[in-house]
Amino acid sequence: MPLDWSGISHVTKVDPAEQLPRDLAILGGTDLVIVGGSDGVTRENSLDAIERIKSRFPELPVFQEPYSSGHVSTETVDSADYLSVPAVYNGDRENFVTKHVEFFTEIGNRPDEVVGTGLPVVGEFIASRGREAIAEISEKIVGEGYVIQNLDSKAASVSGVETTYSPDEVAGAALATESFYGFPIFYIEYSGTYGGTEDVAAAAKYLDETVLLYGGGITSQRQTREILDAGADAVVVGDCFHDDPERFLDTLP
Amino acid sequence: MPLDWSGISHVTKVDPAEQLPRDLAILGGTDLVIVGGSDGVTRENSLDAIERIKSRFPELPVFQEPYSSGHVSTETVDSADYLSVPAVYNGDRENFVTKHVEFFTEIGNRPDEVVGTGLPVVGEFIASRGREAIAEISEKIVGEGYVIQNLDSKAASVSGVETTYSPDEVAGAALATESFYGFPIFYIEYSGTYGGTEDVAAAAKYLDETVLLYGGGITSQRQTREILDAGADAVVVGDCFHDDPERFLDTLP
Repeated sequence: MPLDWSGISHVTKVDPAEQLPRDLAILGGTDLVIVGGSDGVTRENSLDAIERIKSRFPELPVFQEPYSSGHVSTETVDSADYLSVPAVYNGDRENFVTKHVEFFTEIGNRPDEVVGTGLPVVGEFIASRGREAIAEISEKIVGEGYVIQNLDSKAASVSGVETTYSPDEVAGAALATESFYGFPIFYIEYSGTYGGTEDVAAAAKYLDETVLLYGGGITSQRQTREILDAGADAVVVGDCFHDDPERFLDTLP
Repeated sequence: MPLDWSGISHVTKVDPAEQLPRDLAILGGTDLVIVGGSDGVTRENSLDAIERIKSRFPELPVFQEPYSSGHVSTETVDSADYLSVPAVYNGDRENFVTKHVEFFTEIGNRPDEVVGTGLPVVGEFIASRGREAIAEISEKIVGEGYVIQNLDSKAASVSGVETTYSPDEVAGAALATESFYGFPIFYIEYSGTYGGTEDVAAAAKYLDETVLLYGGGITSQRQTREILDAGADAVVVGDCFHDDPERFLDTLP
């Protein structure tokens, strides 16, 4: 059941290792939540974040974007609507293809051993249910074609990213996503810095069926507008959700 | 316009660098033709093969599967129904991701320079039409998730394949194709040797929307049946089409 992206223009990335605002009411204006992070994330705090958000806003779509199987459990898979899994174009081979083939090999053939192997997703979930889980998990997985444009970010270091893409290459990766790899999402990630509109505009001109997300350094409605006007389907806002609710509210379109 | 694969169980791979049988009537029983090869292929002999087949069997779907942009021209793109482009799971990074992103970067941004760059597809076609060609070419491109299982083959050497996959890994790559990468075709290539049913059966159990092709060493109806019974949607028969018409006819299901 693919998600209907019409009407989704503002996405909040929630880091489950960080403090959530006591009052989640500020999420009332966002259209989708992605729960994920790289440091200090566990299946317990992931589940807690997903459940708190879902109990307050049952209709709000929630993705879990795990970095390792240690972030995932039967409960997180059941609670989240989708599992979003990045394939990093400008990362190393491991992060575009190897780990995914290894992971699917594991879930297909040795479900019991997936737990704790460090593979990107769904260890305990598979182990607890065996093969019948495969169809369910497959339906929940959403591939994201990622380009990571901030070499100093944690995201870059865990994905083996050593060079950023030029706007031409961003456009090429977007066109490849649309025409060749079938990822439903193309994600330009500036992770903590504001990257401006150039990459977004370059990618947008080739994306029709593919959803275009931009994330990184958005702290104002002006920036949100700029990115949406350049052709993104939605902006992804992270940091200020945790530490500056006023600013977060100002990023709503 | 995706191809309707129901009713397609026998595919003929035609090497345009080799002699075609004088009488193409033997293609009357096959369901689809793939035109492609690695040695001696040119855009001229590719076009000649496509046109000869199309003029004899106008309704028979014809794929061109180019190894380089030198195999492709405006005329081959117009004549063939689809351009099938392999992404080799067990090849090097170049053959799974890099060359495709580079290629789409080129066609998106410097169409005039694509000619003769050695990128996998469609040089002259793009150069002659510029950007308006991009939509057309994108619609014709069909990605194939490939696993190449014969290390001694030309296909392995040009794709940087240094290790074959175990049946478990073949299953994993199949599941990754179905659930994550969106290639419409998963192709197990034994290139010149008969690989038997084990890989096919391993892959078939995870493929639903994805078409499963097996190619390599098929010389009899018994082998065709074996492979189809193991779960392949179609067998791909190559060599004997060129050099042994009787044997070729015997591979029809």
